[in-house]
Amino acid sequence: MPETHGRRRGALRDLLTTAGVEALLVTDLLNIRYLTGFTGSNAALLLHAEGDDRTLFCTDGRYTTQAAAEVPDLATVVDRASAVALANRASADLKTYRRTGFESQYVSVEEHETLKVRFDGVELVRTPGLVEKLRLVKDDAEIEALRQACAAADRALRDLIEAGGLRPGRTELEVSRDLENRMLEHGSTGPSFASIVAAGAHSAIPHHQPTGAELKAGDFLKLDFGATVDGYHSDMTRTVVLGQPAGWQRELYDLVHTAQAAGTAAVHPGAEVSDVDAAARSVIAAAGRGDEFAHGLGHGVGLQIHEAPSLAATGVGTLSAGMAVTVEPGVYLAGRGGVRIEDTLVVRDSGPELLTLTTKDLVAV
Amino acid sequence: MPETHGRRRGALRDLLTTAGVEALLVTDLLNIRYLTGFTGSNAALLLHAEGDDRTLFCTDGRYTTQAAAEVPDLATVVDRASAVALANRASADLKTYRRTGFESQYVSVEEHETLKVRFDGVELVRTPGLVEKLRLVKDDAEIEALRQACAAADRALRDLIEAGGLRPGRTELEVSRDLENRMLEHGSTGPSFASIVAAGAHSAIPHHQPTGAELKAGDFLKLDFGATVDGYHSDMTRTVVLGQPAGWQRELYDLVHTAQAAGTAAVHPGAEVSDVDAAARSVIAAAGRGDEFAHGLGHGVGLQIHEAPSLAATGVGTLSAGMAVTVEPGVYLAGRGGVRIEDTLVVRDSGPELLTLTTKDLVAV
Repeated sequence: MPETHGRRRGALRDLLTTAGVEALLVTDLLNIRYLTGFTGSNAALLLHAEGDDRTLFCTDGRYTTQAAAEVPDLATVVDRASAVALANRASADLKTYRRTGFESQYVSVEEHETLKVRFDGVELVRTPGLVEKLRLVKDDAEIEALRQACAAADRALRDLIEAGGLRPGRTELEVSRDLENRMLEHGSTGPSFASIVAAGAHSAIPHHQPTGAELKAGDFLKLDFGATVDGYHSDMTRTVVLGQPAGWQRELYDLVHTAQAAGTAAVHPGAEVSDVDAAARSVIAAAGRGDEFAHGLGHGVGLQIHEAPSLAATGVGTLSAGMAVTVEPGVYLAGRGGVRIEDTLVVRDSGPELLTLTTKDLVAV
Repeated sequence: MPETHGRRRGALRDLLTTAGVEALLVTDLLNIRYLTGFTGSNAALLLHAEGDDRTLFCTDGRYTTQAAAEVPDLATVVDRASAVALANRASADLKTYRRTGFESQYVSVEEHETLKVRFDGVELVRTPGLVEKLRLVKDDAEIEALRQACAAADRALRDLIEAGGLRPGRTELEVSRDLENRMLEHGSTGPSFASIVAAGAHSAIPHHQPTGAELKAGDFLKLDFGATVDGYHSDMTRTVVLGQPAGWQRELYDLVHTAQAAGTAAVHPGAEVSDVDAAARSVIAAAGRGDEFAHGLGHGVGLQIHEAPSLAATGVGTLSAGMAVTVEPGVYLAGRGGVRIEDTLVVRDSGPELLTLTTKDLVAV
């Protein structure tokens, strides 16, 4: 893994040159994890454009052993005030650090006031989003982690259904805990977000949180959940029917299923994100249900459960090979029930690669 | 609960006057929850010093139903860009909003750039920490939630021990999941932080994360965990021995137990936080183990698992009645084992009120 992190830091250096800075102060812990492999809760990184031998990593005394194992390839400063400690180093070496960028999308106004004082003699430059730009396209190590996270979710749902865990009389909360525990058994370190388990009319609430409500025969049951592996998140939604589907349920399901397939088919390098959204949305709108699909089609997924790009009508930009995104149309009939079907997939030149592999045929449990 | 939130907003208004602003833009979601009861993931609050009828709450379309139920007592604007929407309202009413404070400890430099433009004609003033100042002293509703969170943790540990869940052959990870599931059964909505379960030599690592390592007879087992109820966190550590304690284990345990009692006895309104730390630390230092207690004595606990005040040698300030804090000394012998004992308690005029009630006598399981 040190080679992977070194390669990412190399790619970032090209962006520093473009941004006109000699160094970047990285303070966001996810960005630090991406660039170094460090998983502790306090760190800062002062990455210099000239190379790793001028780059400094800082964490506090709780993490010296961990940092030696996770970040063997960078000089490490030990200090509780990690960003301030690196600022002091820079201001003691003004020839090396004339213009330094910082993550102005995360650094608070108060923190900035402190850094301005500590980076004495260094010009601090707002450079938001440089690491996020790299994180848009996943490398092999990231896709492998996403693949494992998606597999843990797939397997947990399979086990849950095989064990009869989706039966009338259980509560949404029971199903949610059962599903999350089964993901742990398959290698997840924790749910990638608060699981959505929504039975009956609750399935019409897009982000319903599980309650003590009992599953009933004939209900839709919507499950939106994910696993976390090596810090990477999976995201999948399936909607099943408890027993034999009624006509209206089959009709609603088929509509969303068709829209999901249309959205997925539109995922290719170079596609405008708004066009991908439109590919799925137009199917639902043509059926007169456009108003009942009131959220975006999908989002990027990686170290964060929601990250760029946004696959939405208002989204801007195009897809590139190696991006990981969700495709998740839904139609929600208030008071009756709703259907959402969601996959996590990787944009590929040869067409989207599905990472969530659970069937999207209508399942009656 | 609307009365509780209204009372908190009233107390905040007094601080606005002192800070010399007519309104405060609150964007931190925990502070918004504290002031309004809203639990969604997108909101902003523009609290006016003159009263609730001039105060505006904003959330997006996903939360209109939830906001009507949770925030029935404030005018609600529906807009996805919640802070910007309220900024636009203020700049359209410059007589009412001349000087407005914002949470500069949370608002990023980039967000501030946007707000400066949108609060057109309004003077934006850095006012960090106003709501946190109120949150330092807990009101009755908060202490009740903390009490329930602590009870869920107490009961889960009792059940786990009674069920024989702390036996040789189980892994740290199995114990951690078992404990977290039992907290859910007792009303927790989730662990208040990543549970620490550390067996044998692992108990000497203060923040050890559970692994596949098996519990062995004769081991120390350190459990640091908590439950969450209504958004409030409990925090408790107990260290037990699997089987009959050896002489060195009993000696180490007694030392930490005595230090914990000394720290607790020093908790009273008016006490300097550094003196509380010293009361426990001096016991450990007198035994020649001062270097092996390398963290602070405790911290405030509430809507965040770690919040002010900090009970540490470097801490500044005094305790007040109604603060909720932890007292958690530890001594860690690298490669052998460690002991930490921690309670959550409330500062009271009549002496500290324990919320975590599990015995602190040495338990052999």
